[in-house]
Amino acid sequence: MTSAIIQGLPSTHGDHYQLNTTTLIRHSARTYPEQQIVFRTADGGWDRYTYADAYRRVQRAANVLTWLGIGPADMVGILDWNSKRHYELYWAIPGIAAAMLQMNLRLSPEDLAYVVGHSDARFIFVDESLLPVAEALAPHAPNVKGWVLMSDKPMSQISTTLENVHHFEDLMADASEVYDWPMIDEHATYSACYTTGTTGRPKGIYYSHRGIYLHTMSQAAALSMSADDAVMLITPMFHGQSWGLPQTGTYSAAKIVLPGRYMAEDTSVLVDEMIAEEVTVANGAPAIFEPMLDYIRTLDVKPDFRRTKLLSGATEPPLSMMRGFHDLTGADILHGYGATETTPFVTANGAIKPSLRTTLTDEQKWDLKRSQGLPVNGVDIRIVDADGNDLPHDGQAQGEILLRGPWIIERYHKLDDDGDRFQDGYWRSGDVGKIDAYGYLKLTDRIKDVIKSGGEWISSIDMENAITAHPKVAEAAVVGVHHPRWQERPVALVVTTDGDDLPIEEIHALLTGSFAKWQLPDTVVFCDRLPRTSVGKLDKKVMRAAHADIYKDTL
Amino acid sequence: MTSAIIQGLPSTHGDHYQLNTTTLIRHSARTYPEQQIVFRTADGGWDRYTYADAYRRVQRAANVLTWLGIGPADMVGILDWNSKRHYELYWAIPGIAAAMLQMNLRLSPEDLAYVVGHSDARFIFVDESLLPVAEALAPHAPNVKGWVLMSDKPMSQISTTLENVHHFEDLMADASEVYDWPMIDEHATYSACYTTGTTGRPKGIYYSHRGIYLHTMSQAAALSMSADDAVMLITPMFHGQSWGLPQTGTYSAAKIVLPGRYMAEDTSVLVDEMIAEEVTVANGAPAIFEPMLDYIRTLDVKPDFRRTKLLSGATEPPLSMMRGFHDLTGADILHGYGATETTPFVTANGAIKPSLRTTLTDEQKWDLKRSQGLPVNGVDIRIVDADGNDLPHDGQAQGEILLRGPWIIERYHKLDDDGDRFQDGYWRSGDVGKIDAYGYLKLTDRIKDVIKSGGEWISSIDMENAITAHPKVAEAAVVGVHHPRWQERPVALVVTTDGDDLPIEEIHALLTGSFAKWQLPDTVVFCDRLPRTSVGKLDKKVMRAAHADIYKDTL
Repeated sequence: MTSAIIQGLPSTHGDHYQLNTTTLIRHSARTYPEQQIVFRTADGGWDRYTYADAYRRVQRAANVLTWLGIGPADMVGILDWNSKRHYELYWAIPGIAAAMLQMNLRLSPEDLAYVVGHSDARFIFVDESLLPVAEALAPHAPNVKGWVLMSDKPMSQISTTLENVHHFEDLMADASEVYDWPMIDEHATYSACYTTGTTGRPKGIYYSHRGIYLHTMSQAAALSMSADDAVMLITPMFHGQSWGLPQTGTYSAAKIVLPGRYMAEDTSVLVDEMIAEEVTVANGAPAIFEPMLDYIRTLDVKPDFRRTKLLSGATEPPLSMMRGFHDLTGADILHGYGATETTPFVTANGAIKPSLRTTLTDEQKWDLKRSQGLPVNGVDIRIVDADGNDLPHDGQAQGEILLRGPWIIERYHKLDDDGDRFQDGYWRSGDVGKIDAYGYLKLTDRIKDVIKSGGEWISSIDMENAITAHPKVAEAAVVGVHHPRWQERPVALVVTTDGDDLPIEEIHALLTGSFAKWQLPDTVVFCDRLPRTSVGKLDKKVMRAAHADIYKDTL
Repeated sequence: MTSAIIQGLPSTHGDHYQLNTTTLIRHSARTYPEQQIVFRTADGGWDRYTYADAYRRVQRAANVLTWLGIGPADMVGILDWNSKRHYELYWAIPGIAAAMLQMNLRLSPEDLAYVVGHSDARFIFVDESLLPVAEALAPHAPNVKGWVLMSDKPMSQISTTLENVHHFEDLMADASEVYDWPMIDEHATYSACYTTGTTGRPKGIYYSHRGIYLHTMSQAAALSMSADDAVMLITPMFHGQSWGLPQTGTYSAAKIVLPGRYMAEDTSVLVDEMIAEEVTVANGAPAIFEPMLDYIRTLDVKPDFRRTKLLSGATEPPLSMMRGFHDLTGADILHGYGATETTPFVTANGAIKPSLRTTLTDEQKWDLKRSQGLPVNGVDIRIVDADGNDLPHDGQAQGEILLRGPWIIERYHKLDDDGDRFQDGYWRSGDVGKIDAYGYLKLTDRIKDVIKSGGEWISSIDMENAITAHPKVAEAAVVGVHHPRWQERPVALVVTTDGDDLPIEEIHALLTGSFAKWQLPDTVVFCDRLPRTSVGKLDKKVMRAAHADIYKDTL
């Protein structure tokens, strides 16, 4: 954080009032007490209650937390799906100035234990269905003082090896449904979420009340959300708070649909529930949306999702999927960009902007829809070259994306050597992209994979996509390897469909036009398969190492 | 400000990044450089430029301010209509950490001089058309160091008695169009606006960057504004920043339409321009909308305003006007509530909420549309009795409206005895209203006019409306006068159409049903005319004084 803050005249708006997240549900419970929250029950059915009901339970839960001895600055873990109780704890825990630890069910037990220890979580709330995860974790989490079991069943019907276990609903039944919320410093932590990076230990991101509050307002404005919306949370509430939709839905007094663990199970149920509840906003990754679309293809009567926005993240949505949803249901897929470090809302690719709507061809529009879209107001985005200099927004220059704003992190929690992840107060995303004259962001690579050659950057992904256009190429990877003169040169690794090598001229022919002549790979290595990591990602580290010395003796 | 602020865990969102208003236009100029701003020219025509053009001029203007010696914490006055240059100064002045004094053209020269002196404004930017106002003010504003004249004409063609005059466009031509904005403490003053209350001196309200920023996001979300909108600013930018629409339009990258002084002249031009620019959002008072509707009635082809929201404030919109716009054009009138002290956005009465849309009759819907609507999320609203106790939201209990939130003032500028205007950190609005179980706010009176009788409050306005329903009543006023037993009792002052008195039973008959028997006025005074203030408002102070002793000897 380098820049000095300039003082002006004191205002009469004053500086006492703090942005506290729990005021958002209090407000909606007062102005839309009758609005519904639909949730999956333990027996696999669906039930519903109102905002007024939910808010009364949020207040009960705050009293339960207090009774357990949890108070300001305490960390409280949650092991749960996208459930009703999880939703209630989203407001109750931060509302008493404690912080909520988002526990990613997909982390290894060791990483989960590290996260619990690093964040100093003393209590963990666990859904009955996740008792095995908690029981595996418990021996590695000696500082956890107690567990709160969330279930519809009475305690007598549940057996567990956990010690110091409380029953949430028993405590709720005894608690008052009134709670007088304190005013909390808006910079206090609302929740903690740890990265799942493949290298090194998980890194802690501590979201503030203020950051979440502003992220919520921004998302509500950008998505034009209102009480006429119905929001289904498909992405996990246990990581990156389901992209902020629980809060934004509540802020906008939308109907909220909580599919419990259906989010990870049967995607056809999600489609059925979208139809039943007339869902207008849902979030997920192509890996979820693809099987949903497959299911829709089997339906005799296609659902009418013309009002529906499907927020899609993680990977670029395939064009066939975007068109499929559009043609069969009318749903609009909004590709977006964000990261755990950005809360995550940075861009969303909604309706094509007015000035391009009449000038682009249909094909150009679909191409544009696959980009990451326009940054939302409030996020300061830059693209910079290797020396940190700003690059023009001309749709050509590509550089690392730097981000700054009220909901972008300024540091990692208790991590001393994070200096290389920040520059001038901006978070370095590690993503490479370009921005065109209309403001659209297009991601082109990860900075560790981009090829830095002769002072320019070559996108490994662009080159891979171009090479796989060859009918005989099954898959391809491009990595940069050291070159004494050019800094780096691309090396292409290619798997052909028939196992035979191709003439290098045919590879070059695919690249001519999109790439300059000096960018073409001198070396193409044909192989049987590409090295992959344990989770199935291309392992470019291994590829680079295998070919590191190709140009060693070149001048 | 009474409540203590509780600390939690430090977050990694951090506390360095400040909410600065000028980042909002910078962002939109980058993501929507091609979006248009339409403005009235000095010759009465219309012209347009883009966000990119505007932002370059904003940066030029920041350099001009710096060249003039204006810097952080300096106050700069503006005398202008809703013009292009006014719009540019909205960003340039606060962007350099100076503050913008909104100078209400309708204040008396004495009050204007008081405002300039109290706020310590050293430079004043004045549109050529308002030179007479500036010249009348100058002798009373000895601390003003310089004036900046805004005109398309060269200096040589303008004559003025002002001294130390600069020519804005000459300075702009010489200035760089690049400016490196500082990071400003978000609690610094963005602009100052003084109340125009009828009693006492104008009171200073100093809006912060943060307050304006959050108000902007809230309004964008509540009105679902986007780049598909076209926003026409009809209410003055020189008081209460045109209700925040200049900022919200810019945040949303909407087209902005600046009608210059047409806002105060020919309302038919406003309608023509709304049609030409396909305006979707405009703001005004019924006093402006009524003649606009009259003009629309004369048009052979009625405009299609089905996408248009007309934000209406100041007084309750007449039902005939709301229905007229709806039936002839499809436009939706959104009645709202706010005050200079609230920036002003507190409520907006948009689409009837989903749960009532199918259950209310058309007549009930129109009645509901005349209420002030639902408070926007972020504003904490209470209604309290005379002792400051919270009243239920049951649509019956009426009390004073208290407000708190990021864009509600916490004090007045340099006013020591403002304690009676605040309670527990809430601003006391002086308005009386009720809130129903669905969250809708209905204003019923001003607290100084409400009749406090037998422990309950009687709305003077409700009673006046009921009495004027009598075919022979031309106008009526009801005031509370002291009563030894009931605290206050209502006294009705009535002007009949034929000058003859009516039997009191006929007055009582009009009130039975809406009012309890003990609330009926024992005293009805028939008179030729009602006392009014110099600006034409009912002068209830005079009425109360004239009848103060009616019940003096009653037991």
